[in-house]
Amino acid sequence: MALYDHIAACNKHSFDGRLPFGVGGVQAGWVREDLAARMTRWGDYFKVTDKGVDILESLADVEARSKALAEAGAALVVQQALPRNRKELCPVMERFGGEVLMRIDRAWLEPFAVKSYGVHVNGYVPGPDGPELWIGVRSKSREVAPGKLDNMVAGGLPVGIGLLENVFKEAGEEASVPEEIARTARPAGVVTYTLDTQAGMRRDMLFIYDLELPADFAPQNADGEVSGFVKWPARQALRVVEETDEFKFNVNLVIIDFAIRHGLIAPDHPDYARLVRGLRAWA
Amino acid sequence: MALYDHIAACNKHSFDGRLPFGVGGVQAGWVREDLAARMTRWGDYFKVTDKGVDILESLADVEARSKALAEAGAALVVQQALPRNRKELCPVMERFGGEVLMRIDRAWLEPFAVKSYGVHVNGYVPGPDGPELWIGVRSKSREVAPGKLDNMVAGGLPVGIGLLENVFKEAGEEASVPEEIARTARPAGVVTYTLDTQAGMRRDMLFIYDLELPADFAPQNADGEVSGFVKWPARQALRVVEETDEFKFNVNLVIIDFAIRHGLIAPDHPDYARLVRGLRAWA
Repeated sequence: MALYDHIAACNKHSFDGRLPFGVGGVQAGWVREDLAARMTRWGDYFKVTDKGVDILESLADVEARSKALAEAGAALVVQQALPRNRKELCPVMERFGGEVLMRIDRAWLEPFAVKSYGVHVNGYVPGPDGPELWIGVRSKSREVAPGKLDNMVAGGLPVGIGLLENVFKEAGEEASVPEEIARTARPAGVVTYTLDTQAGMRRDMLFIYDLELPADFAPQNADGEVSGFVKWPARQALRVVEETDEFKFNVNLVIIDFAIRHGLIAPDHPDYARLVRGLRAWA
Repeated sequence: MALYDHIAACNKHSFDGRLPFGVGGVQAGWVREDLAARMTRWGDYFKVTDKGVDILESLADVEARSKALAEAGAALVVQQALPRNRKELCPVMERFGGEVLMRIDRAWLEPFAVKSYGVHVNGYVPGPDGPELWIGVRSKSREVAPGKLDNMVAGGLPVGIGLLENVFKEAGEEASVPEEIARTARPAGVVTYTLDTQAGMRRDMLFIYDLELPADFAPQNADGEVSGFVKWPARQALRVVEETDEFKFNVNLVIIDFAIRHGLIAPDHPDYARLVRGLRAWA
């Protein structure tokens, strides 16, 4: 599909039938009305009205809020109203860098439409004909996008870890990148989108890093999340983005962003400015 | 001022008191009501109502429309209702890459709020402590932003010239960059903003190029538009952006964009995502 269609595909969403989800006096997400109705059972944790769902003010700190959500959430999983948790906690913030208001299991980010943060690392080798990109092939056993193509390194940001620390951690686990190389990763912007999913809504902010690699480096997966890696000219990766759905849905956007920043898309491309702007649908 | 304030400063505008300006059946700009009132005199060229100003359909091609605007414009200059023309014609398009609907003098882009396109070239030398940027000092005799700091090469896009051709031309005129070096300029995205000015409104799309230069290259101005060049660490340029108004208003945005793409702003900067998104206010 056309490059811009990938951006449009990552931004299909509607707020119809969703209620604001308030935490600590600010809106931290959205809840579907059917989930909100089930949450009325925990009147000592949540105030549920036709205007929204709020964690009670009496739950005044991160611990109390997180515990309340974990408890109600566990019961809602049994009701099959929430997906099984992944035992990885993520920070709930009004915006990135702000106060952590609550911790939430990664699996519940979507049902509560809580903003989600992650790092994506373009591992590349410069060359006379343009950069080559290391591409990961996602393991077939993964819940999200099994078998799809991926960035060399990518991962959601758990609570209590900084962005760069997460880059080091994921680079080691996913691609066996030595820390002295991972330390040279350069931040290069963000990609953001809002997407309705079966579980709820993704409001993702991907922090993009470029990591220049020695020509003789080859990534090796250490955590079972990646079944293998291939090194492609970035132009070829861009062609695969343009012509197929082989890449994981959001990785298409990361590749487009890389291609624009590295001069692989000519500015007279009819969608050029729309691509540049569309890659960050929110901030 | 804070980095984001430069973006906000480039986007101060209001459509109050402005009427849509139609050319060839599409909206190509905006005209202030006072200017619209003066345009009623040319009823054989313009249809002026309280809903907008349109070039008459009977002026069916680029030649006829351009001639009509040039003629009325010349008279409006004498009335001091338009700035003196610069004798450099620019394309009027609904969007970049689309059909050229009319030609308009560069000085009248703002009064008619016609979208304006230009190229900005970051001339840089990579180094172990990050890139160094060649910065131009604008001649004191220039109409716009005299004496301010500028990109090494920048220029508006006249009619009939492609983006890359304009890069070569301006790189030669403004900085004496040999064409074999200019040819290595890499497109790297766009910066866009909408800004009210005394003359009207700027709706600018800047096509950004990075041009890696040999360490021993030094730009030399050939057209009198630049009084000199300095080579600064890009981090220093960014500090000057953050702390002063020494740079031309829109060049601040180009430097911020360069700094983000080259990893000189940490992603935990409190405005990081707002900066990335805000640098392209429209597409």
